[in-house]
Amino acid sequence: MDDVSLGLMLDLVGTFVFGLSGATLAVRRDFDIFGILVLAIAAALAGGVIRDVFLGATPPAAFSDTRYIAAAALAAGAAFVGYRVIERLAKPVMLLDALGLGLFAVSGCRKALEAGLDPLPAVILGVVTAVGGGALRDMLVAEPPRVLREEVYALAALIGAVIVVAGDMMALPPGWAAAIGVVMTAGFRIVSVWRGWNAPRAPGSGKPR
Amino acid sequence: MDDVSLGLMLDLVGTFVFGLSGATLAVRRDFDIFGILVLAIAAALAGGVIRDVFLGATPPAAFSDTRYIAAAALAAGAAFVGYRVIERLAKPVMLLDALGLGLFAVSGCRKALEAGLDPLPAVILGVVTAVGGGALRDMLVAEPPRVLREEVYALAALIGAVIVVAGDMMALPPGWAAAIGVVMTAGFRIVSVWRGWNAPRAPGSGKPR
Amino acid sequence: MDDVSLGLMLDLVGTFVFGLSGATLAVRRDFDIFGILVLAIAAALAGGVIRDVFLGATPPAAFSDTRYIAAAALAAGAAFVGYRVIERLAKPVMLLDALGLGLFAVSGCRKALEAGLDPLPAVILGVVTAVGGGALRDMLVAEPPRVLREEVYALAALIGAVIVVAGDMMALPPGWAAAIGVVMTAGFRIVSVWRGWNAPRAPGSGKPR
Repeated sequence: MDDVSLGLMLDLVGTFVFGLSGATLAVRRDFDIFGILVLAIAAALAGGVIRDVFLGATPPAAFSDTRYIAAAALAAGAAFVGYRVIERLAKPVMLLDALGLGLFAVSGCRKALEAGLDPLPAVILGVVTAVGGGALRDMLVAEPPRVLREEVYALAALIGAVIVVAGDMMALPPGWAAAIGVVMTAGFRIVSVWRGWNAPRAPGSGKPR
Repeated sequence: MDDVSLGLMLDLVGTFVFGLSGATLAVRRDFDIFGILVLAIAAALAGGVIRDVFLGATPPAAFSDTRYIAAAALAAGAAFVGYRVIERLAKPVMLLDALGLGLFAVSGCRKALEAGLDPLPAVILGVVTAVGGGALRDMLVAEPPRVLREEVYALAALIGAVIVVAGDMMALPPGWAAAIGVVMTAGFRIVSVWRGWNAPRAPGSGKPR
Repeated sequence: MDDVSLGLMLDLVGTFVFGLSGATLAVRRDFDIFGILVLAIAAALAGGVIRDVFLGATPPAAFSDTRYIAAAALAAGAAFVGYRVIERLAKPVMLLDALGLGLFAVSGCRKALEAGLDPLPAVILGVVTAVGGGALRDMLVAEPPRVLREEVYALAALIGAVIVVAGDMMALPPGWAAAIGVVMTAGFRIVSVWRGWNAPRAPGSGKPR
C-alpha cells in the first residue's frame, strides 16, 4: 500500500468514526433512520467541508470523492442495526474518535499551509476542521457543543496543528510532522479522558446571567 | 413563457413558500419585524446558498439575482400582516412547502451533476439544498431541526434527487427527470403527512442519555 | 496614518470587540479557556468569513491576515483574566460593539458592491456580515440569537448598509458614504439601547405553538 492510499484510508477511518458519533447521538435522540443518516453525514463531513470551502477548494473533497459519503452512510447503518453493541464499545469508539481528531487536525492544518496560509490561521483552520463536525452535530440537536466544554478536546486538536506548523517552519519532512501530530493529538486526548484533565476556567466564571 | 422563465418562476415560488415557513415561525416566537425578515431569508435562501458555495458558484444565485431576496422579503411581509390568515391556511401552505421541497431537491441535484459530481454526492447535495433552509431556520430558534424528526421530510427530498440521478444515468431528457422528481417528492411528502407515515427508528433508541 | 491602515485598524477594533462579546459569554457559561477562545473567534470572525465565502474571496481575510485571529485571541485572553472588570464596563463595551456593528455592516456592503452585486443583495450581505458572528456565537451556546430579538440590532446594521448603497447610487465618494453609514448605524444602535426602542411585532404574534 503506497503513501497516498494510506493517507486516504486513515481519512476514511476518521470519517467513519466521526459518523458513528453523529449516528449514535441521533439514535439516542430517537431520530428516524433518515435523521440518523443526516447527523452521521454532518458529523463526519462538516469539518472537511468547512476547510475546503474556506480554502476555495470546491467542490469539497467530501463531495468530489464518493467514498467519504459512503463511509458516513456506513456509520449510520452500523449505528442503526448495532446501537446497543456500539454503546457497550464506548471505550474503543473513544480511541478511534481520538485518532479521527488527530487525523482531521493535521489534514486541515496541512491543506491550509499548502494553500499559503500563515502559521496562526493554519493552526486555527486545523482546529476548525477537527472540531467542526462535532460542533455542527451538537448544534443540530440544539445543545451547546460538547467539543467546547468537555475536557480538553479542542486543545488536543490544537497540539497536533501546532506540531504540523512547527515541523513546516523547521523544514521537517511533512509526513513525519503529520505522523507526530496525529499521535500527539490522539495521545493527549486519550490521556486527558483517562486522567479526567480539565483546562482552567476564568476567575469568577459560571455565575448565572 | 419559455422554459427558463418557468424554471425561475417555480424556483421563486419555492423561495417564497420556504420564506413563509421561516417568517411564521418568527412570528410565533414573538420576534420583531426584523427578526421575521431574517428568519424568512434564512429559511428561503440557505439551502441554495449552501449548494452554490459547495459548488464554487459564487456569488450564490440568491445574491446575484435580486428576485430571490425580494421573494423572501415578500414572504416576511405577508407573514407580518397576515399571520392569522396564514395559520388558518396550514393545509395549502403545507402543499406549497412540499412543492418547494421537490423543486429544491431537484435543482440541487441537477446543479451538482452539471458541476461533475458523482451520483451519490449529487444526491446528498440535493437533499442538503432541500432541507438546509429549514434546518438553519430551526437552529436559529435553538430547536432540533424538525426536518430531521418530522415524518419523512428528508426522505421525500432523497426520492426526488435519486430520480434525477437515475434519469441522468439512463440519459433521459433532464427536463423529464426533473419534473418526475419534483412530482414524486411533493407527492410522497403530501401522502406521508396525510397518512402519518414514519420512518423506522433504531432498536433500543430514544432512551435517556 | 494613511486611509488603508485606518480602515484596517477600525476593522481590527471591531474584531476585538466582537471577540469580547463571544469570550464574555463563554466565561458566563463556564467554558474552559479553550471554549472561550473558540467562542471569541466565532463571534469575531464568522461574519467576515461568511461575507468572503459568499463572494468567492477565499481564503477569507480572517485567515489570510494573521492579525484578525490575533485580535480575537487577544479578546479571549482579556476576558479570561479580566472578566469581572469587563462586566463592570458593560456600557463602554456596548459603545464599542455598536461601532463594530457599523464597521462590519459597511464593510460587508462595500465588498458586495465591489464584487458587482445588486443593491438589495449588497444590503442583505452587509447585514449578514454585521450580525453573523453574533448569531453563530449564540447558536454555539444553543440560544436563539439575541441579534434577532434584542431591540433593533439588525435594523441598525440595515441602516448603515442602505446608506452605503444609496451613496453608491448617488456616486458619492465611497469613503464619505462609509463614514456616514458607520456613524448612523452606531448612533442608531446606541440611541435605541438608551431609549429602549423596539421594532413592531406582528398582530397576534407570540402565542404558544
